[in-house]
Amino acid sequence: MKTIDLNADAGESYGRWTLGDDEALFPLISSVNTACGWHGGDPAIMRKSVRLAKEHGIALGAHPGFPDLMGFGRRMMDVSHEEVIDMMTYQVGALLAFAEQEGVRLNHIKPHSKLYVTIARDDDLMCKVADAMLALQPDLVFFMLAGRAADNLRKHGYNTCAEVVADMEYTDEGDVIIESRPPAKDPEYVARRAVDMVSGIVETIGGRRLELDADTICIHGDRPNVLDIAKSIRSAFDREGISLNAPSATSSVRF
Amino acid sequence: MKTIDLNADAGESYGRWTLGDDEALFPLISSVNTACGWHGGDPAIMRKSVRLAKEHGIALGAHPGFPDLMGFGRRMMDVSHEEVIDMMTYQVGALLAFAEQEGVRLNHIKPHSKLYVTIARDDDLMCKVADAMLALQPDLVFFMLAGRAADNLRKHGYNTCAEVVADMEYTDEGDVIIESRPPAKDPEYVARRAVDMVSGIVETIGGRRLELDADTICIHGDRPNVLDIAKSIRSAFDREGISLNAPSATSSVRF
Amino acid sequence: MKTIDLNADAGESYGRWTLGDDEALFPLISSVNTACGWHGGDPAIMRKSVRLAKEHGIALGAHPGFPDLMGFGRRMMDVSHEEVIDMMTYQVGALLAFAEQEGVRLNHIKPHSKLYVTIARDDDLMCKVADAMLALQPDLVFFMLAGRAADNLRKHGYNTCAEVVADMEYTDEGDVIIESRPPAKDPEYVARRAVDMVSGIVETIGGRRLELDADTICIHGDRPNVLDIAKSIRSAFDREGISLNAPSATSSVRF
Amino acid sequence: MKTIDLNADAGESYGRWTLGDDEALFPLISSVNTACGWHGGDPAIMRKSVRLAKEHGIALGAHPGFPDLMGFGRRMMDVSHEEVIDMMTYQVGALLAFAEQEGVRLNHIKPHSKLYVTIARDDDLMCKVADAMLALQPDLVFFMLAGRAADNLRKHGYNTCAEVVADMEYTDEGDVIIESRPPAKDPEYVARRAVDMVSGIVETIGGRRLELDADTICIHGDRPNVLDIAKSIRSAFDREGISLNAPSATSSVRF
Repeated sequence: MKTIDLNADAGESYGRWTLGDDEALFPLISSVNTACGWHGGDPAIMRKSVRLAKEHGIALGAHPGFPDLMGFGRRMMDVSHEEVIDMMTYQVGALLAFAEQEGVRLNHIKPHSKLYVTIARDDDLMCKVADAMLALQPDLVFFMLAGRAADNLRKHGYNTCAEVVADMEYTDEGDVIIESRPPAKDPEYVARRAVDMVSGIVETIGGRRLELDADTICIHGDRPNVLDIAKSIRSAFDREGISLNAPSATSSVRF
Repeated sequence: MKTIDLNADAGESYGRWTLGDDEALFPLISSVNTACGWHGGDPAIMRKSVRLAKEHGIALGAHPGFPDLMGFGRRMMDVSHEEVIDMMTYQVGALLAFAEQEGVRLNHIKPHSKLYVTIARDDDLMCKVADAMLALQPDLVFFMLAGRAADNLRKHGYNTCAEVVADMEYTDEGDVIIESRPPAKDPEYVARRAVDMVSGIVETIGGRRLELDADTICIHGDRPNVLDIAKSIRSAFDREGISLNAPSATSSVRF
Repeated sequence: MKTIDLNADAGESYGRWTLGDDEALFPLISSVNTACGWHGGDPAIMRKSVRLAKEHGIALGAHPGFPDLMGFGRRMMDVSHEEVIDMMTYQVGALLAFAEQEGVRLNHIKPHSKLYVTIARDDDLMCKVADAMLALQPDLVFFMLAGRAADNLRKHGYNTCAEVVADMEYTDEGDVIIESRPPAKDPEYVARRAVDMVSGIVETIGGRRLELDADTICIHGDRPNVLDIAKSIRSAFDREGISLNAPSATSSVRF
Repeated sequence: MKTIDLNADAGESYGRWTLGDDEALFPLISSVNTACGWHGGDPAIMRKSVRLAKEHGIALGAHPGFPDLMGFGRRMMDVSHEEVIDMMTYQVGALLAFAEQEGVRLNHIKPHSKLYVTIARDDDLMCKVADAMLALQPDLVFFMLAGRAADNLRKHGYNTCAEVVADMEYTDEGDVIIESRPPAKDPEYVARRAVDMVSGIVETIGGRRLELDADTICIHGDRPNVLDIAKSIRSAFDREGISLNAPSATSSVRF
C-alpha cells in the first residue's frame, strides 16, 4: 500500500484577521506547517495551532518566514546567511516553547514562501540552517522542495522530506510558481495532480511530466477552497489505496 | 423629514488578510472611517478605500489608531498628548495623500477604538488634536462620542458630529462597551436601536433610556453580519422616513 | 562576606541602532537581562548578547517586553493574562533557542518595564507566568520587584530573586519610578544607594528609608553613563567587602 | 562662483534609539532628507526633523524607505510598481502633514537606500512615482542618482536634482556601493571627492574618473564621523570658492 504525507501551510491568521479555517482543515491532513509570527501567526494563534495539531494527532511543523507582515513573507528579500539562520532560530525557538508547554513534539521545519526559496537554492545555506535547527532538537525532519534541493539536503545526511506542491503550478524547469494570493482552484484537478505526485510525476504548465520523488504533498491553507481540495484529495487517495503517513525521523524508512 | 449619517469603520483589511466586505458595505452607508495603517489598512487598502468612497459618493473619514497591529488598536495604551497628536498627524497625513491623488476630499476624522476613548475623555487633548488636524485641512469635521465629549468639543467651536454606536452596547453611565472581536448581532435589534437613536434615545444594558443627541450612527465593518445589519437599518429608515445625509462642514446646520 | 547579584537590562540595540555598550558593560556585572525582540534586541543582537554572557561568565536572563518597538516597551498596555503568558512564551522561547545553539544555560526571567509592572502587581498572573516558564525549563529563577511582589512569588514556592533598582528612584510607597529615557546620573550617588541596598535599605524620593530585602541590584544599560555607574558600584562594593554572585536555582541559599 | 547643494540623509532615529546628531549636522548642510517612519524616523522624530530644518533654513526633503525597520531599508525587497507608489505616497503624505503643521514647505523627494535603487533603475517606475508625488505638491524636486537615472528623469520633464554620494564608493560602472553600516571615513578624503564632484568628476574604486554632472552631494547622517566630514567639506568648499545652494523648483536655473 502506498503512503504519503499531506501537509498544509496553516496557522496564518494574525490578531483580528482570520485566514483559512484551521479547525476544519487539520482533521484532513497528516502534517501542518504553522506560521511563527513574522509573516502571520501571532503568539495566540501559534498556541492554538499547536493545540489543534495535538487534538488531531497530526505532525507539527514550524513555518518561519521573512519579517514582512504587510507582504505575508511572499516578497523576496535580500538577506545574508547569518540573517537567515537568526530568523529561523528566533521563530522556531518561539514555536518550540508553545509546543513544550502543550506537550507536543515538534516534528519538522518548513520555511515559508520566499524564505523557503532562498534556502532551497543555496546548498551551503541549506546545510547551515539544518545544523542550526538540529542544535535545537536533534531529530527534526526538514521539508525541502523535491528535486535538486531535497536530493542535496538528503545527500548531506539530513532527515529530508521531499515536498511537491499539489495546488500550485510548476514551470517546465521544475520551479513552483508562488502565488501571492492563491485563488480558488478546481478540487478534482488538484486531486488528480496529487495522485500523480504519489507516483512521482509532476505535470508542468508547459505540459511536461517531470519525475520528482516526493514524501509529502503540500496544499495551502489560505486558498479559499482549500477544504474542498483537501477532501477531494482524500477521496482520490481512498479510491487509489493511498494512505496518509506523516514523515518523522523515526517512522520513515526513507530518511 | 429626519436625516442622519450612517457611518462604518472599514478599510481594515491588511496585507494578505481581508476583514469585512467593503465593496458591499460602502453602497449601504453615507460615510466611512478608513483605517490608516497602524491597526489595519495598509497603503494598498487605503487607496482602495478612498476609491470605493469616491465611487459610491460617500463621505471619506480618517480612522487612525494605536500602533498595535497585533491588538488591532483595541488595547489601551498609555500615551502622552504629544504622542497622540503625532500619531494622528502621521496617519491622517498618509490618508490625505491617497485622497489627493484620487481626487477625493477628506471629510472627517474619527479616531479608532482605544485611541478614540483616550481622546474623548480628555477635553484638553481633544482640542489639541482638533487644532492639529485643522492645520492640515481647515474644514474638517470631527466625529466624537455623543454626550459630554461631543458637547464639549462643539462648545469649543469645532465642527462636531456627535456619534452613537448602534451595534455595540452602552453602560448605564453612557459609555460604549468596546468588543475586541464583534460577534454577529440580530440585525432587527440593531435596526430598532438605530431608529431610536435618530430620536435621541440610547437604551443601555441596564435598560435605561439615555438622551443622546446624535448626528451620525456607527456600525462596525468587522462584525460578521454587518451587511445584514446595514440593510436592516436602511429598511427601517425607509419605513420611518429617515434619509441618510453625511455631515460636512458646509452642509450641516448643526455645526 | 556579603554577596549580591548586580544585573543590567541590556542587549537592547535593534537593527541599525545601537543602545548602550554591551561589550564594556557585561564584564562589570554578574547577570544580564537581554531583550527578546519586541521592545529591542533583534535576533542578531540576541545571539550577540548570549555570546557576550558566555564569554564573561555571567548569568543569562530573558527580558521580554510589550510589543511596542516605538515606545520601547515603556508604555503601559492593557492586556489579558492569556496575552501576557503568550507574549512571554514567544520571546523566552526565542531566546532559549539562541542560548541552546551557543551552549549557554538560561538562568532567569525578568520581564521588561511596563510588562514587569503588569505582572508584579497581579499575584495570580505572576504565578501563571512562572508556571508557563517552568514548563520551558524547570530550574528557572524569577526576578521580581523586592517587597510585596517578590515576597508573594517566593511564598508560592517559586525560585525568586528579589530585585531593587539602584539607578532609578522610589516613591514613598515603594514603587520604582520608571524613566522612558534614563538620563545620566551621579555614579557616586548610585553606588551609595547600591551599598545601602545590600543592607536592605532603599531611600525614597521623599527621604523615607524603606526596608527591602534584595538578592539582586539592577542598573540600566541604556543610561548614558551606565559604565561609570557600574564601575563606581564595583569600587564601592570592593571597599565594603561585598562580592558579586549571580542567583541561580542551585547556588543560592535563599531559594 | 560655483554652487552646489550639500544634502544628508538624517532624521533616522527611532523611538528609544538615537542615530546621528541632527542638531549639529543640520547647520552644516543645505538640504536634508528625513526618514518617514518605515526604516527610521518615528512621528516624533519626523516633527523634530521638520522643526530643525526650519530653524536652520535648509531645504526639507522626504526620505521614504522600504517597510523594514530591522534591516533599516537597506535590504532589497522585490516589490511591484503599485507597491512602490503606495509606499511612497503613504510616507510622503505623513511627512507633508508634519511640514504643514510646522509651516515648512516640502522641497524634494529622495527615496532611501534600496528603494532608491529600485526606482532609479526603472525609468517607467521613476516617472510613475514622480507623477504620484506631483499630485501631492506640484513643485516638488526629485533627487535622482547622477548619470543615466537623473538624465532620464530630467528628459521626461521632471524637476530633477542629480545626486552624487561623496562618502560612499562607486563601482567602475558608476553604481554607488551601499554600506549597511557606514563606518567612519577620512574627512579630508571625502572633502577632496566632494570638490571633484562639483567639477563633475567621480573617482571609482577602480581608479576611473567618471564624468557625472551633479546638482547635489550626499553625505550620510548615520556615519559615525559625519560631523567631521561635513566640516571638512565646508572648509574645502570655502577654500575653493564653492557656495551651498539648495535646489528648488523655483530657484535653480538647472531645472
